[in-house]
Amino acid sequence: MEPITKFELSQEFHDRFQRALNEHDKKFISSSLEEVNPADITTLLYEFNSEESKYVLDMLSVATRAQIINDLDTETRKSFLSIYSATELSEIINQLESDDAADILNELPIKTSEEIIGNLDSDLKSQVIDLLRYDEHVAGGLMAKELIRVRATWTVVECIDEIRKQAETVGKFYTAWVVDEKDKLLGMVPLQKLIISDPKTLVKDICEDDVMPVETYMEEREVAEIMRKYDLESVPVVNVQGQLVGRITIDDVVDVISDQAEEERQLMSGITEDVEEDDTLLKNVRARLPWLLIGIFGGMLSARFMGFFEHELTKITAIAFFVPLIQATGGNVGIQSSGLVVQSLANPGYLEEGMAQRLMKVFYVALLNALLLSLIVLASTSLFFNNNRLSVVVSFALFCVVMFSSFVGTITPILINRLGFNPALASGPFITTASDLLGLTIYFLTVHVLL
Amino acid sequence: MEPITKFELSQEFHDRFQRALNEHDKKFISSSLEEVNPADITTLLYEFNSEESKYVLDMLSVATRAQIINDLDTETRKSFLSIYSATELSEIINQLESDDAADILNELPIKTSEEIIGNLDSDLKSQVIDLLRYDEHVAGGLMAKELIRVRATWTVVECIDEIRKQAETVGKFYTAWVVDEKDKLLGMVPLQKLIISDPKTLVKDICEDDVMPVETYMEEREVAEIMRKYDLESVPVVNVQGQLVGRITIDDVVDVISDQAEEERQLMSGITEDVEEDDTLLKNVRARLPWLLIGIFGGMLSARFMGFFEHELTKITAIAFFVPLIQATGGNVGIQSSGLVVQSLANPGYLEEGMAQRLMKVFYVALLNALLLSLIVLASTSLFFNNNRLSVVVSFALFCVVMFSSFVGTITPILINRLGFNPALASGPFITTASDLLGLTIYFLTVHVLL
Repeated sequence: MEPITKFELSQEFHDRFQRALNEHDKKFISSSLEEVNPADITTLLYEFNSEESKYVLDMLSVATRAQIINDLDTETRKSFLSIYSATELSEIINQLESDDAADILNELPIKTSEEIIGNLDSDLKSQVIDLLRYDEHVAGGLMAKELIRVRATWTVVECIDEIRKQAETVGKFYTAWVVDEKDKLLGMVPLQKLIISDPKTLVKDICEDDVMPVETYMEEREVAEIMRKYDLESVPVVNVQGQLVGRITIDDVVDVISDQAEEERQLMSGITEDVEEDDTLLKNVRARLPWLLIGIFGGMLSARFMGFFEHELTKITAIAFFVPLIQATGGNVGIQSSGLVVQSLANPGYLEEGMAQRLMKVFYVALLNALLLSLIVLASTSLFFNNNRLSVVVSFALFCVVMFSSFVGTITPILINRLGFNPALASGPFITTASDLLGLTIYFLTVHVLL
Repeated sequence: MEPITKFELSQEFHDRFQRALNEHDKKFISSSLEEVNPADITTLLYEFNSEESKYVLDMLSVATRAQIINDLDTETRKSFLSIYSATELSEIINQLESDDAADILNELPIKTSEEIIGNLDSDLKSQVIDLLRYDEHVAGGLMAKELIRVRATWTVVECIDEIRKQAETVGKFYTAWVVDEKDKLLGMVPLQKLIISDPKTLVKDICEDDVMPVETYMEEREVAEIMRKYDLESVPVVNVQGQLVGRITIDDVVDVISDQAEEERQLMSGITEDVEEDDTLLKNVRARLPWLLIGIFGGMLSARFMGFFEHELTKITAIAFFVPLIQATGGNVGIQSSGLVVQSLANPGYLEEGMAQRLMKVFYVALLNALLLSLIVLASTSLFFNNNRLSVVVSFALFCVVMFSSFVGTITPILINRLGFNPALASGPFITTASDLLGLTIYFLTVHVLL
């Protein structure tokens, strides 16, 4: 057994593969994909168009095909699946577990998905119909219906028989869930405990009852946090009656965490669409334009605003020299403050109560930074520019800018969060644009009053 | 069984608990922590000082104490453990699995950790000594030594006997790893397969050989990506001889992914230390100062630079009006471009080869954005400001700024990545400061030449 050699998609192989596709060289294609892990074939598909990808997939077994389609990201899958017929899709979706099947059905046009549901195997059909009721981003939308369900009154042998029966449909599992005759969750038995117990032991004697079920409507973020915090590899999902309705495994949660990180990065970068560099030109432009336009609008406002102070500017041109300094500092302070708040908000142990106390803390940090920075600026401006009065004005304005930007940077993500949006929105161009305008206003008001 | 009710740390409870601590009210403390999950007690400890925390922990069983200390974040744990004696620490660390034990030992002063290692149980001792050889951020530093090891020639019954023997020391496991007489990894048997197989079956007949071992020196980032991509709940770690030396489970990887996201957020926010809002005042100031100072330095440079154009500014004051517009746009474009590259770099399917091609793509996106934005600015400036010549200069400069900032924003994270640093560094104040200076230079050069 060799350590994994990662499948490297070289430009050379890419070109060779493209040629094989153009020439419909089935032999080359199937021989080069032999032994390749389906997850690597997925990567390959991102490089080719839908028709080419379908041509490749049709050469593989339906199980592999299903796994690859399941691995694709939502955007790619949506456009890719549009060239499949409902019959082809039914065959593929029949291979999946209920949660993955429901996810894909959710992405398809209602008409197509209704047709597919009609064609599904009866077990999967009822499971999928049940899952489609839930919003994608709550526990109910994340869970799979397939699980090993055992009774507290059974013996270990009976359990193992049941597991043997269910093993076909359930896929990977590490736990048997213990329920009563009304399907109410009582606890769980890890497989490792089942394996080392005497066959005649009763389930209730080895059942662990300190499990942490989540309810169907819990936000996926919270589910992820609970699983991370308590180191759980799977959690049972119960309905309001406490009945076991599904389970969520840690690999689903890994995806939730990765997706959140990506969403946050996009918000912080001022990208408004889920876009990648190799998406179309138009999509790239569209994802970038909104924040650029807002920035331009802010810039035009600044220009108008500075127009009111034309008189002062004509008198002392040097006033203009310090606009970048004021704005850059305002922007940096704003981003730092909001970044810290976004981090606290991501931490569910976060206390909304201590608001007054934490604003005081922010105030002191800002005060110390503001004092230090304005002293440095006072010293260096009076050293390099020959206008002591202006030096005082600039450093005083800088002091105010640091104080205000700290406050705005702290309060904005909290407000955005309360309004139900992702607070990371406040950590990107939003806060820079706001800080720019704020900084400029403070600076020119100071100039107007003090100079 | 009730669905999990999250342990809510109310201000009221906090105050009550603090009073109990002051009064050494053991009865209140132990009764209020009964039935509370250790992970929740960890949260509680962040609210109290080291002596108080130790007082609480000393009332709990050593196993619980070990679990709580293991859950603490590195920073807190470092300062907390400094009040423990080496003997107390040995007792605690003896309760942990090898990987967690090694992590904690790595954080302690060498003298203390040597003393503790001397006191450990012999099995754990040799495992820990082996683990301490590895860097924290590679597979060897992430893995645990405890695992279930079986031979291909055994029967299922022999396996189960072995599992029964090892189960005490290994903790949670879902897989038995199959090795030959030289400890070379041959494959694995999931517990669920073991459970449903006939007791007389040979291991080699149910052994799955398509496992993906990672080598000890693989970067944790890569390990995380492999486990995420191939949906693995554990991977075996092998040495260069292909011998099985440990295993990494998905919960370790969840921590790696969360830590990466947090590190990235900090870099993007211009925070230079791992800091939280409720850390000390000084630490908060120290984490924020460096980028603020660099911003101030950039601002002073800008001021000096604009000084060279005092003549132009005195003639046409309105030139100054558009400095914020130019800088904001440059900053936004820079952040967007670097954000997208950082995202691509996080994706390991990323092709360094297509560099020329992707720069062309970036070029076209920038071109389209630059054209659109400068047209909008041309139109609105000539509408609101009465200087057509200036309008042309501003929109031409804006065009150049968008083009250059796109290029710099794209190339910087790639360079930073090649130098071995985290490319997210290029997505924060670094790129804004660079874009500010770049934008200003382009603008004033344009002014100088065209006006």
